[in-house]
Amino acid sequence: MANFKGHALPGSFFLLFGLWWSVKYPLRYFNEKGNKKSHRNHSYQRLDVIEGAAKIIFAMIGMLAEQFVPDGPHLYLYSGEERSWVKLMNWQHTTMYLFYGLSGVVDVLTYSPLKLPLGMDRLMLSVAVFVEGFLFYYHVLHRPMLDKHIHSLLLIAVFGGAFGILLEVFLRDNIVLELFRASLAILQGTWFWQIGFVLFPPRGGPAWNEEDHDNIMFVTMCFFWHYAAALLIMIANYMLTYWYVNSRCDLCSPSVNSLKPFGSEMGA
Amino acid sequence: MANFKGHALPGSFFLLFGLWWSVKYPLRYFNEKGNKKSHRNHSYQRLDVIEGAAKIIFAMIGMLAEQFVPDGPHLYLYSGEERSWVKLMNWQHTTMYLFYGLSGVVDVLTYSPLKLPLGMDRLMLSVAVFVEGFLFYYHVLHRPMLDKHIHSLLLIAVFGGAFGILLEVFLRDNIVLELFRASLAILQGTWFWQIGFVLFPPRGGPAWNEEDHDNIMFVTMCFFWHYAAALLIMIANYMLTYWYVNSRCDLCSPSVNSLKPFGSEMGA
Amino acid sequence: MANFKGHALPGSFFLLFGLWWSVKYPLRYFNEKGNKKSHRNHSYQRLDVIEGAAKIIFAMIGMLAEQFVPDGPHLYLYSGEERSWVKLMNWQHTTMYLFYGLSGVVDVLTYSPLKLPLGMDRLMLSVAVFVEGFLFYYHVLHRPMLDKHIHSLLLIAVFGGAFGILLEVFLRDNIVLELFRASLAILQGTWFWQIGFVLFPPRGGPAWNEEDHDNIMFVTMCFFWHYAAALLIMIANYMLTYWYVNSRCDLCSPSVNSLKPFGSEMGA
Amino acid sequence: MANFKGHALPGSFFLLFGLWWSVKYPLRYFNEKGNKKSHRNHSYQRLDVIEGAAKIIFAMIGMLAEQFVPDGPHLYLYSGEERSWVKLMNWQHTTMYLFYGLSGVVDVLTYSPLKLPLGMDRLMLSVAVFVEGFLFYYHVLHRPMLDKHIHSLLLIAVFGGAFGILLEVFLRDNIVLELFRASLAILQGTWFWQIGFVLFPPRGGPAWNEEDHDNIMFVTMCFFWHYAAALLIMIANYMLTYWYVNSRCDLCSPSVNSLKPFGSEMGA
Repeated sequence: MANFKGHALPGSFFLLFGLWWSVKYPLRYFNEKGNKKSHRNHSYQRLDVIEGAAKIIFAMIGMLAEQFVPDGPHLYLYSGEERSWVKLMNWQHTTMYLFYGLSGVVDVLTYSPLKLPLGMDRLMLSVAVFVEGFLFYYHVLHRPMLDKHIHSLLLIAVFGGAFGILLEVFLRDNIVLELFRASLAILQGTWFWQIGFVLFPPRGGPAWNEEDHDNIMFVTMCFFWHYAAALLIMIANYMLTYWYVNSRCDLCSPSVNSLKPFGSEMGA
Repeated sequence: MANFKGHALPGSFFLLFGLWWSVKYPLRYFNEKGNKKSHRNHSYQRLDVIEGAAKIIFAMIGMLAEQFVPDGPHLYLYSGEERSWVKLMNWQHTTMYLFYGLSGVVDVLTYSPLKLPLGMDRLMLSVAVFVEGFLFYYHVLHRPMLDKHIHSLLLIAVFGGAFGILLEVFLRDNIVLELFRASLAILQGTWFWQIGFVLFPPRGGPAWNEEDHDNIMFVTMCFFWHYAAALLIMIANYMLTYWYVNSRCDLCSPSVNSLKPFGSEMGA
Repeated sequence: MANFKGHALPGSFFLLFGLWWSVKYPLRYFNEKGNKKSHRNHSYQRLDVIEGAAKIIFAMIGMLAEQFVPDGPHLYLYSGEERSWVKLMNWQHTTMYLFYGLSGVVDVLTYSPLKLPLGMDRLMLSVAVFVEGFLFYYHVLHRPMLDKHIHSLLLIAVFGGAFGILLEVFLRDNIVLELFRASLAILQGTWFWQIGFVLFPPRGGPAWNEEDHDNIMFVTMCFFWHYAAALLIMIANYMLTYWYVNSRCDLCSPSVNSLKPFGSEMGA
Repeated sequence: MANFKGHALPGSFFLLFGLWWSVKYPLRYFNEKGNKKSHRNHSYQRLDVIEGAAKIIFAMIGMLAEQFVPDGPHLYLYSGEERSWVKLMNWQHTTMYLFYGLSGVVDVLTYSPLKLPLGMDRLMLSVAVFVEGFLFYYHVLHRPMLDKHIHSLLLIAVFGGAFGILLEVFLRDNIVLELFRASLAILQGTWFWQIGFVLFPPRGGPAWNEEDHDNIMFVTMCFFWHYAAALLIMIANYMLTYWYVNSRCDLCSPSVNSLKPFGSEMGA
């Protein structure tokens, strides 16, 4: 949907996943250190399945929204006597959501009795991000300069993320890669919102001059400010998780994942 | 051959190999898990030799077809008094087949007494795919927009596959990479057929408008639908293989690769 | 700052870090070999923290200089009634320094009680270099030919360095990668000075002809001469370090990091 | 030197190194298998030093030839009153040779008492090949179409080789990568000769039409035929080495590297 909501919806999905990952992975990291065992917690497997289900649901919402908004294609691919294509933009967005949905299906199948080989889930997520990237790349080829530029900056986050996730196929449970993924998901999320604000000002203010070179320069810089903010959010979440895990240990409530050894190590 | 058959022939070869791999590798994966041994089965080495031979035969068929179709070059490279080149398009296709043939030769030599170092076979296949990619890249540089675009989408599958196979040089017998290779081979196969249908409608229907931007947009999206279909075929074949391996165990026929331990592990 | 000083300042920072690394890493390498232990010295961790602090200070200096030079933006982002952007060039440079500052913060946090996972510091440095690269890339798109070319050569050093540092995330304490990083930092440093001399001759001599193709060719070649010089400086520093470490052993002063075993190994 | 000899000289150097590597590495591979030890033979270290010295000598010859041919720059960089650049083409070629010379110096230093860290030699060779690639890239930007295309095909071999050698920094003594390097060196060698024949026909025949698209298509294909030939030469040399090593064992002359165990393994 080439309007504000069409950018706010995927932006919110990415932001939600990015923020969630920026809490989940530090938590697992501290728990593993605390337990002095590197085996992944069974509960994290269940989380992965829930994440997969969430991906499927989000992808469904996205696909339905793209198809059935008032000016959507309502599942018609071509129409009329001369068989012209109907709302291909919406169809392309539907395709992007479809691949994230497939990634969710593979996530769920990985921990089903079928036991897809570990790594397929990461590969499938990487493929989904690559598909998003390629579709955007061909998507914006014939747009005004600012529109093109603001989307091509998104491609840095998209392809950077796709490569990072590809590495996770071979370096699974690498905390550095996982936090990198989280930071780029947050970046994508906030940048989708930014695109919406720039190209379709929701309060109907004056549109940006799409051919002004200074606007291009500002937007470039702004993209990296978003990333700086994403990194600061990540660091803040890491710290909060650290203090939460540590404080839980100070109370020393007898829990399955007792953090005593970890807390004492930290104090040493 | 710039006609429907010239795209259907390589398309069928890729499809055949892709489907075969999507069954072979899950089968080996389940057998290895069942046997609780990571040594590769001797019978799989024999399969690799047969695959190599099949590649050589397919490459021969392709080369002969490109050379000896009625409007082919019949092995003449230049002709006439001014020594102009003869049917360079067919010669380029011949070159592509040649490298797949060489890859077949290296496959066979790997398990001959000569014992080429393991990894050479993957490297050679990767080189063959890269060569296909580079030839296509220079090939379509001066074509109408739709023709160019539909072939450049193919390059995503080609270079993606080439990189994946390159990784297999160093990460041999990695099931994730092998399934990725299979999925891209299926994609190439079905996409070659699609190219044939779009550029040379076999039933002689009206040609597509090669300069219509909407057609470009649809084709881009269609390419990724092919990939989604390829992935679903892969998952279906994986499941079928899983049920086949498991059911064979339930009958518990005494076989060399008894799957008892595997079946019981699955039930646990 | 689009003047001589605006290139000399970052040039000096990079040169300083490059030269320092070209001494520090060989020293650690010889010490580790001498001690026959691969554990990293505690004192090197303290050095990393000091390096991080130096990065933060340098980044602050750079940001303040870019903002508060007489013709700088003085922290105003837009001004006037028509809300036009103020000195975006300086703001872009400020953004580059910002990311190096963030990298310094992560360096310091890595050895704080918070214990960021090892590898985050390298990832963050790599991100800072990538950001510098992307900003330069979009920065020089609409400049005269020589200006564009001389900056695009810088991108070779920048992206080469960013990839090398990315590898260090996974191959930490690899002496080859560390020396590679040092050599590219020296190259960036001297090249920034060179850019200053070519585009803003400090003694006010005649400007270079920015559209002369011969100047482009010379500048290309000159860039690689800089790298050859950087490599020779590296080798010289490596040799000096070697002789220093060895001579300290000949005097056999009883020190914590006694190099006796290493010296005798060398003589064997 | 933009003439036939200026392409034949580097072509011969690459060809010589490529052929030598295509014999040396299989030989070492068989010897290691025969000895059932993976330690690299001391004699191979001496070979590496000799190779380094050969690189230095070849680079010197190349540099002197580029500078002191009758129409060379004779070490003058600029001349005349208006200080115009002198023969920059020759200076660029000199720069390429310089980096190969530096690579030779690092090879020699690796096995000197200084003991540069292992991997530096590969990194330096990779850098030399990258420098060659970048210089060629900027070099041919403003040439006629055929000239540009024939050199840009060379870049495939150059950058492919540079990446392969970069991998050798981390995967040292990997026979597959070494043979890949050898094959690309042979390809570069024969392709330099081919460029000479196409652009500067030595017997003074009619020049090729530099704007004919068919010539471009043929040249593209011809490049890959060269690679197919290089691969066949590699396989032939591998076989010859195999038979030589095996036959030496049949005679069973008591040698330091007795191949008995290897021969019997082969027969088993």
